[in-house]
Amino acid sequence: MNEKKGAILILSGPSGCGKSTLLKEVYKDINDYYFSISTTTRAPRVGEVDGVDYFFVTKKEFEEDIKDDNFLEYALVHGNYYGTSLKPINKALDEKKLVIFDIDVQGHELVRNKLDSIVTSVFITTPSLKVLEDRLNSRNTDDKEVIENRVKNAKAEVEYFRDYDYLIINDNLEEASKQLVSIANIARIKTKLFSKESIVSSWL
Amino acid sequence: MNEKKGAILILSGPSGCGKSTLLKEVYKDINDYYFSISTTTRAPRVGEVDGVDYFFVTKKEFEEDIKDDNFLEYALVHGNYYGTSLKPINKALDEKKLVIFDIDVQGHELVRNKLDSIVTSVFITTPSLKVLEDRLNSRNTDDKEVIENRVKNAKAEVEYFRDYDYLIINDNLEEASKQLVSIANIARIKTKLFSKESIVSSWL
Repeated sequence: MNEKKGAILILSGPSGCGKSTLLKEVYKDINDYYFSISTTTRAPRVGEVDGVDYFFVTKKEFEEDIKDDNFLEYALVHGNYYGTSLKPINKALDEKKLVIFDIDVQGHELVRNKLDSIVTSVFITTPSLKVLEDRLNSRNTDDKEVIENRVKNAKAEVEYFRDYDYLIINDNLEEASKQLVSIANIARIKTKLFSKESIVSSWL
Repeated sequence: MNEKKGAILILSGPSGCGKSTLLKEVYKDINDYYFSISTTTRAPRVGEVDGVDYFFVTKKEFEEDIKDDNFLEYALVHGNYYGTSLKPINKALDEKKLVIFDIDVQGHELVRNKLDSIVTSVFITTPSLKVLEDRLNSRNTDDKEVIENRVKNAKAEVEYFRDYDYLIINDNLEEASKQLVSIANIARIKTKLFSKESIVSSWL
């Protein structure tokens, strides 16, 4: 009866909204997920692990996958390719996993339009721009210019929240975690994931 | 920023699927809900409580509310009126509560079409018709004819599961409860519940 395919969970939200922290809570609670990571031809930096931070491949491998139409999207930046390979995503969907994307609003549109899968999407924000700025400043890790750029992007991104299914306003970590865990828990029981035939036949 | 209205959660599923048991778990976990009950002009039976089992009203009151278009639906059965009054529903929505309906597939369509609110709907089933029959028989509370009728209705209802957002196959109470609680937890953070203006203005 459980003839269902894998499902997709998309998270978007400005840098500083707390996405990574919330995702850690989700991973404690759910099984059978695959977190989508990018593929790149640039060399690993110190501490970066293949299959964790990126899939590190050669330029030749990357270009063959471009030719075989194996990328959801890709870009050439300063001589290095970066892209989202469809191979691990399709493998995870075949294994009925929940495929999780942490992507921006353009990526959200791309996944919705290009992947023939059932998607649940979540937009995560801070309660206000002021709170976001304060969080970014208190991290003390980024240049003023980087922060200004992030704030500018955040203002542009938040305009698109209504293209998503759910909105999490992360002003309380416990509450926001509970909401995200709940969303992840039910992403795989959308009715559209079940074929009508498989359900109805067990009812004859 | 939290300028949202109340939301609606609709549960449907055949008699014997475990809806009432699952609902009890939801009530332990969520706040600010209103469970929709019917209004009737029939006399309360022993043990029935006004405002819990039904709203008990006079025929005159009922007919005035019909005239004022205050019913989602109503019917006259053996000389008594039964109906779903819009007054407590609209009050609960104004108070930003989660309004929960336990209704059949026709009721689901009615709520979707007649109430201008954000709806999440869940269809609950047993894994198979056989399991449903076994559960109804093991209850030992119903006539053979009543059970046969319920089974017939169940077969007709399950055909409509794809009109719902989520499907819970209740073959494990703990898992099914977790799923329903998760659905209830996030019914109030659908993006459509937030006005674009209210969010975007806190981001300027």
